[in-house]
Amino acid sequence: MRRILLALFGGLLAASLVLQPGLSRTPENAGPQFTADGKLLRPEGYRRWVFVSSGFGMSYNANAGGNGAPAFTNVFVTPSAYDYFLANGKWPDKTMFVLEVYGSTSRGSINQHGSYQENFQGLDVEVKDESRFPDKWAYFGFSASQEASQAESPGKNDCWNCHDKNAAVEHSFVQFYPELLKLAKEKGTIKPTVHLEDKK
Amino acid sequence: MRRILLALFGGLLAASLVLQPGLSRTPENAGPQFTADGKLLRPEGYRRWVFVSSGFGMSYNANAGGNGAPAFTNVFVTPSAYDYFLANGKWPDKTMFVLEVYGSTSRGSINQHGSYQENFQGLDVEVKDESRFPDKWAYFGFSASQEASQAESPGKNDCWNCHDKNAAVEHSFVQFYPELLKLAKEKGTIKPTVHLEDKK
Repeated sequence: MRRILLALFGGLLAASLVLQPGLSRTPENAGPQFTADGKLLRPEGYRRWVFVSSGFGMSYNANAGGNGAPAFTNVFVTPSAYDYFLANGKWPDKTMFVLEVYGSTSRGSINQHGSYQENFQGLDVEVKDESRFPDKWAYFGFSASQEASQAESPGKNDCWNCHDKNAAVEHSFVQFYPELLKLAKEKGTIKPTVHLEDKK
Repeated sequence: MRRILLALFGGLLAASLVLQPGLSRTPENAGPQFTADGKLLRPEGYRRWVFVSSGFGMSYNANAGGNGAPAFTNVFVTPSAYDYFLANGKWPDKTMFVLEVYGSTSRGSINQHGSYQENFQGLDVEVKDESRFPDKWAYFGFSASQEASQAESPGKNDCWNCHDKNAAVEHSFVQFYPELLKLAKEKGTIKPTVHLEDKK
């Protein structure tokens, strides 16, 4: 019965995407959406969320990047969570971050130096859901494939541990997002245990 | 009299920003806003627009970037223009692009390689306004300073000529924005005179 419902839900989801190109599979205020067995639905609409910053060659994914063509990592957050952060310097329940990984290239069109984004490689998604996760934050990975629209819930893992120890505000690496870092300093919400300077 | 009105307008503008922190000086559907003498008002709310992509070390500004600490360039577009592009593969009147320049750093916090964004350096703004500009598109530069909230209208200039000749769709460098490039190919809106491949 559960399988039938999930299949039906998937079908409705696909139909709604066909009918509404460009619209989000996870509407702004719906928060993270899970399947009955705890998988996070891929947040397709994140490109209309708020961009906080991007990195180059500093992916959280050990398989991305490299000397030849480092990966860009674009970070987006749900708009309502962004507005809440501007007012409070911290993140509300149901906040979602998407870290989008793009391979890079240097030579194309009129570009003669530097790098730009070329091929989509996958997503890492960070969710704050206090009622679902005893440790508040959870981490999910998605491949580039449109078919792989779900990921298993990984529980408390290496992502969680690193974010818990090193992220400047709660579990978010605000130290790498200059606009938000400035605001967190003003609000006094940076974790006292975190070193913002180079650790070497 | 004009100066008095402008000063009054500036005062009201400043007051509204104080009263509404985080809100845009140029609301979503207002389009580009000009002073009586043709200067573009700085679009403060662009960080809630739609991010299209970022580059690293490929700034349009010859003074930004360099081997030591190349600049990131984050490109944002007005949300209604983005939605129009998804449907049509081209840009509506009143489209605005912001190219935001950030200096980079490699060493800080737990980062050991790659680069992230650190210090805001300025904005380049591209506007499509068919009733105001005979050549449809116009280009404006803004320094990093919050005081320099206006820029003189430059008319048809080097920016215009380069975008007119080399940009893939109208005056936008969609060849550097992979999500939009894919869509423009599907819609058949890439200028036939533009070479998307490396020109070397």
